[in-house]
Amino acid sequence: MVKKLIRNPAGSKDWLPDEVVKQEYVKDKLVDLYELWGYQPIQTPILINRDSLTIASSKLTNRALSLIGETGNLLALRADLTTPIARVTAERLHGSKLPLRFYYVGKVFRYHARKMTNERELFQIGVELIGKKEGNADLECLKIFLDSLEKLGFNKYMVLANHACLWSELFKCFGNVARELYKALSKNDLVLFENILLKSKLTLKEKAFWRALIKIKGKKEILSEIRKISRKIRKFNVTKIISTFKKILDIDEKHVEIDLGMTNDIDYYSGIYFEAITPYLGRELGGGGRYDELIGKFGLDLPAIGFSFCLEDLLLALENQGKQFPAFKTPSYVKSKGNIKKTFDKIAMLHRKGKSATIQL
Amino acid sequence: MVKKLIRNPAGSKDWLPDEVVKQEYVKDKLVDLYELWGYQPIQTPILINRDSLTIASSKLTNRALSLIGETGNLLALRADLTTPIARVTAERLHGSKLPLRFYYVGKVFRYHARKMTNERELFQIGVELIGKKEGNADLECLKIFLDSLEKLGFNKYMVLANHACLWSELFKCFGNVARELYKALSKNDLVLFENILLKSKLTLKEKAFWRALIKIKGKKEILSEIRKISRKIRKFNVTKIISTFKKILDIDEKHVEIDLGMTNDIDYYSGIYFEAITPYLGRELGGGGRYDELIGKFGLDLPAIGFSFCLEDLLLALENQGKQFPAFKTPSYVKSKGNIKKTFDKIAMLHRKGKSATIQL
Repeated sequence: MVKKLIRNPAGSKDWLPDEVVKQEYVKDKLVDLYELWGYQPIQTPILINRDSLTIASSKLTNRALSLIGETGNLLALRADLTTPIARVTAERLHGSKLPLRFYYVGKVFRYHARKMTNERELFQIGVELIGKKEGNADLECLKIFLDSLEKLGFNKYMVLANHACLWSELFKCFGNVARELYKALSKNDLVLFENILLKSKLTLKEKAFWRALIKIKGKKEILSEIRKISRKIRKFNVTKIISTFKKILDIDEKHVEIDLGMTNDIDYYSGIYFEAITPYLGRELGGGGRYDELIGKFGLDLPAIGFSFCLEDLLLALENQGKQFPAFKTPSYVKSKGNIKKTFDKIAMLHRKGKSATIQL
Repeated sequence: MVKKLIRNPAGSKDWLPDEVVKQEYVKDKLVDLYELWGYQPIQTPILINRDSLTIASSKLTNRALSLIGETGNLLALRADLTTPIARVTAERLHGSKLPLRFYYVGKVFRYHARKMTNERELFQIGVELIGKKEGNADLECLKIFLDSLEKLGFNKYMVLANHACLWSELFKCFGNVARELYKALSKNDLVLFENILLKSKLTLKEKAFWRALIKIKGKKEILSEIRKISRKIRKFNVTKIISTFKKILDIDEKHVEIDLGMTNDIDYYSGIYFEAITPYLGRELGGGGRYDELIGKFGLDLPAIGFSFCLEDLLLALENQGKQFPAFKTPSYVKSKGNIKKTFDKIAMLHRKGKSATIQL
C-alpha cells in the first residue's frame, strides 16, 4: 500500500524552526515596545460564542469559521482580537482604573482572511487603549503604531489616516448615494464609483466635489484643501476633523499622511482610523482605529482605540526589505561513553554557563 | 433594553494580565531549558484535516472538535501537537540530519480535555526527539522532562515510568483477557479489574500474578520483584524492559519510579512512557513516551520520543505549592502640557533607558 500523504488544509501553514525564530524576533521587538509603553498582556480564548462576534461586526461574522458546540450552540473561531477584548473588558473589568492598556499576540481565523491571499489562520499582535476618548489617547495609540514600524527597522513606510466622521458628515449631506459611493471605495472599485456618480442625481458641482475629495491625500498642505472643498457643500462640517488631522500630522511629519479616499475595513470604527503602507508589501501593513461603541455592545460603555499587525505580513515585508534575522546557534554535542550520568553532568555544567549542549546521539 | 452579557463558551477562559505574566514566566523557563538542550521551535496550524488525526489516534479523534470546511471537507482543531509534528516531519523534513530536536508551545482543543475538568482549549508545551531509537534518546528525553520540573522549582514530584512492551508481552501471554484488564486499568477502575479477573478462566496462580503485577511500583528494589514474578508465567519475557528500567532509574534515583500498573493514555506509544505527579495537583502533571510507528503513518519511518506539559496545570501546581511569581512594574506616567511632541520625546528618553513610561491620560 502506498502511504497517502495527509497535508495541511488549504490556507494553513507550518512554521519550521528558522521561520519561528524570525517570527519570535518580530514578536519580541513589539512586545518589548508595548511593555515599555505600559501595556499589559491579555489573552482570550480561540473558541467563542458566535453571538459575541455577530453583535460586533457583520463583516467579521461573514468571514468567521463556525462550528456546532456539544449542546447545539453555535460557536466560532475568533476572527479578530479587538472584539474578544471588548467582551472581557465589559464582563470582568468593570470598575477598573482607566485607561486600561492591553497588548495581545494570538491567532485569528477567517475564510479568506485577506482579499488577495488564502490564509485561514494568521498571527495578530496589537494593542488596545480603553477608557479614554479621542485626543491624547488617539495620539498615544498612533505614536505606538509608528514606533512599532521604526523599532522593527522598516526604512520606508507611511501611515495613512482618516476619520469616520468624514463619512458620517458625508452620509448626512448626501444620504444614500454617499453610502453607495463609500461601498465602491471600500472595494477599491473606482469604475463603480464613477458609475454611481454618473447615474446619480447629484449636480455637476457635487460630482466634481466627490471626485476631488477622494483624491485629497498628503501632509499639512492638504488641510487648507479640505477647508476649501468643504465650503462647496452646505452643512458639510470639517472643523473637528481638521483639528484632529492637524494633531495627527504633528506626531511625525515624515511618516504620517491624511488620505480622504481611505475607507475603513472594519465596521466598528467610530473615530480616526489608520493603516501603514510600505513598498515591501503589496497590501496594507496593519492598521487600527477608534471604536467608541463596541464595548458598550457588551454592556459597559467605554471608548477605546487600538491597532493590530499581522506577524506574517511584518515578516514578509521585512524579508522583502532584505532584513537579516538572527540564526540559531548550534549546540555543543557531548559524546556519551557508557556512563550517562557523567554525560548529563557535563551537559548540566555547560547549561549553567548558558551554553546550549546536548548528547551526541 | 437590558444588554445581554455574552460570555465565553463553557470550557474556555480569559487570561487577565497578572495570569498571562505567570503563564509567560513558566513558558519562558521551559523554552530557555529546551533551547539549552539544543531543541528548536516548530509551529503547526490549529486547523487540521481530520484525517490526519484519525490515522494517528482514535482516542484523540473521539475528543477532537470537528468542523466542515468550505468545500465540504472535514476539518478538526488539533487535539495534540505530537501528531501534527509527526505529519510535518514526514511531509517536509525527509532527508534532514537526524535526530531532529523540536520544542513547541501551542493550544490544543478537545471536548472534555481531561477526565475531571471541562477545559476545551489548553496550552501545551513539550519536545519531540525524532529519528533515534530507544537507548540514549529515551534517557535524554526523560532527563529533560526531569529538568523541566526542577527548573520550575517544584519541591515535591515524582516521575513514574512504564514500558509498552510490558503490555505487548502480557497480551501475547494472555490474549483477550489481558486487553480487558488493561482497559479497566486505563479507566482506573480496580473494581472492574477484579471483576474481569474473577469471571475469567485464569488459574488461581495467574490471578494472583495479575493482582501482584499491577501493584509493583518503586525504585531499584522492584527490578528483582519483576524478575521473580515473571518466572511464574511461561514465555513472559521481561529481560528487555528490566534493562531499560535500570537505565531509567539511574538518571535520577530520587525522582524516578517504575509503576507497572500505569497504563498509557495515548494509543500511539510503543516504548517507554512516563508521567509526573506532585502532591500539588490532583492529576498527572504532564507526560510522554516513545512513539516509533506514528511518523511512519504519515509516510516516513522514523522512531521518536517526546513529552508535553499543560501550562495551565504547571501554573496551578506551582501556585498550590506557594510559588511567588514576578509582578508587573507600574510605568512612569508623563503629563502632557499641551505640546505632545515634547511629551513623546520625554517618554522616548525613558524608553531608551529601558524604563517603561506612558502618557498620563
